[in-house]
Amino acid sequence: MKKVKLNELKNFSAKALETVGVSKENAETVADTLVGTDMFGVLTHGTKNLSGYIQKMEAGGLDAKAEPSVICEGPAFAVLNGNKAIGMVSACKAMEMAIKKAKECGIAYVGVKNSCHFGAAGYYANLAAKEGLIGLSMSNTDPVIAVPNGCTKAIGTNPFSFAAPDGNGKSIFLDIALSNVAALKVIMAKEKGMDIPDTWLVDKDGLPTTDSSLFPYNASLQPMGAHKGYGLALLVELLSATITGAGMLSEVASWNLDMASTNNVGHAFIAIDISKMMPKEVYKQRVLQMVNELKNAPKAKGKDKILLPGEMEWEKQETALSTGEIEITDAHADSLKALSEKTGIEINIY
Amino acid sequence: MKKVKLNELKNFSAKALETVGVSKENAETVADTLVGTDMFGVLTHGTKNLSGYIQKMEAGGLDAKAEPSVICEGPAFAVLNGNKAIGMVSACKAMEMAIKKAKECGIAYVGVKNSCHFGAAGYYANLAAKEGLIGLSMSNTDPVIAVPNGCTKAIGTNPFSFAAPDGNGKSIFLDIALSNVAALKVIMAKEKGMDIPDTWLVDKDGLPTTDSSLFPYNASLQPMGAHKGYGLALLVELLSATITGAGMLSEVASWNLDMASTNNVGHAFIAIDISKMMPKEVYKQRVLQMVNELKNAPKAKGKDKILLPGEMEWEKQETALSTGEIEITDAHADSLKALSEKTGIEINIY
Repeated sequence: MKKVKLNELKNFSAKALETVGVSKENAETVADTLVGTDMFGVLTHGTKNLSGYIQKMEAGGLDAKAEPSVICEGPAFAVLNGNKAIGMVSACKAMEMAIKKAKECGIAYVGVKNSCHFGAAGYYANLAAKEGLIGLSMSNTDPVIAVPNGCTKAIGTNPFSFAAPDGNGKSIFLDIALSNVAALKVIMAKEKGMDIPDTWLVDKDGLPTTDSSLFPYNASLQPMGAHKGYGLALLVELLSATITGAGMLSEVASWNLDMASTNNVGHAFIAIDISKMMPKEVYKQRVLQMVNELKNAPKAKGKDKILLPGEMEWEKQETALSTGEIEITDAHADSLKALSEKTGIEINIY
Repeated sequence: MKKVKLNELKNFSAKALETVGVSKENAETVADTLVGTDMFGVLTHGTKNLSGYIQKMEAGGLDAKAEPSVICEGPAFAVLNGNKAIGMVSACKAMEMAIKKAKECGIAYVGVKNSCHFGAAGYYANLAAKEGLIGLSMSNTDPVIAVPNGCTKAIGTNPFSFAAPDGNGKSIFLDIALSNVAALKVIMAKEKGMDIPDTWLVDKDGLPTTDSSLFPYNASLQPMGAHKGYGLALLVELLSATITGAGMLSEVASWNLDMASTNNVGHAFIAIDISKMMPKEVYKQRVLQMVNELKNAPKAKGKDKILLPGEMEWEKQETALSTGEIEITDAHADSLKALSEKTGIEINIY
């Protein structure tokens, strides 16, 4: 494991993006998103992917200079064209619009088409929670889940997230893929040569398998809770892609396997202004009552703590902020160092 | 199994409700909802519960004459007070308001407090889909799920549903509890003296158990997908109860174990007007493309059909409509007959 200072990582990320033509403002938005995600401990979706995004800009699959534009807009909705901009730029703009419109109307939906991998869905949901709203954030992805009775990758893991103010300046937040387990978990088992539970994958006949080595070419992920996760993944597909005009199902390719190709995923953001429904102080008292009841519920044998969704992430953020640094894997460090050499922007990793 | 004619069941349900003081209009709304749910094959949530709702009106836990009222309202949101009216009346009114507001603003949220068991969430989501909108419908319930690291019933099964027009006059619709399996499935295993998979329940130590006989007094349901279902159940609690002012978590008692008590669950309805985002014909073509791709995906060994969420329910509805009757269990028939004797309203069950 290696370490890197937060402010240095943020500056490095922004400057590296500027070297390929991203505007200063957008580069800072992306850096805030990726480092914010790292600080939550979601290291798979933060600066680890920065060099990939930059490669995709160089290869033409992303347009470094693009700005998202509004396709249509009304009191409580909008659809944006991402115009091949890096996903974080369109996603932040869309959620900011949703927050603004929700503050007028009570709730708002903003969809995005022609976008790309937006990192961690939870970051955007938390933009709403930070302003006292409930935020929902989701995206379709390239297909990797086999639907019930199917045997091939038919639908994406379609991440779904929500965040709600917790009454203590943080949030209750969930950020999940709609597969039973993340692909990364299967790949880690594969690397260790380990068998997996038969609820993670189906083989090419569509039958449950414990053989992790089959993934990804001869196996597909199982949806969370069988038909339940399949249905929820379809909801995400509908809201992110079907009604925005983004690529649907097989129209979406992996963002990082073919760097020259446009990804064209879609996203959906919903914000709900709680203060329209009840005074902020009443909400605060109610959410604290709910949180306290859950936290104080009797514990299972051998367990001493019930966690709220997002609680671990907030603890990690607190540690990162108080130390001013985060711990990253060697592979993550190598990727940043290689990017540093390529761009000539220095970064100190220790 | 017994049979009953649809029109007779609808008339009977409405008239039986009128005998305890429900207005003709509301009685017809409830009858439409319950028989509509039966027609979808969701017999656990339709007219089987009619005599229970009427008992609750007689015992004072529901107010037969109540009408829901608006607590607060804006361009794209409202919160209703159910005023102890039967859940279906408030739920239908709330979704109708959400649809109307979404047609103005693009999306709308309507919450309900001081309500009671609303039957099947999917019925209300489909009210939106019938009008060309995407509908979401959810409710909190009395606690029956143990959260991760807990050992007692801490949160409800919190049903969540969505429906979206399928381009063929029906809908893609999902209606799920956020437990791994429905309580009824555990109870059926218990009645047969059968063991269950260790992913359904935790015992009173919070440990997974295969002993179905422990439920409900010495075991709790497991959430769907562990922390994922827990998080989603919390989202439903937040949108249905926390921000509406309804009872939260342990404040909600089972609606049918204590008939004299107010239930005070909350509901949340969201409608999204697709036609604001793209012309109806474009949506139709896009959703059909998505549906066809899923239906035509390669099938798992031994399987010949991939179903859309809601497809089985629509097939059952088609059979019910074409035969003009539905099949019900003997227990269901007995409950209707007993209600017939009590109210003096005739019903022909054969």
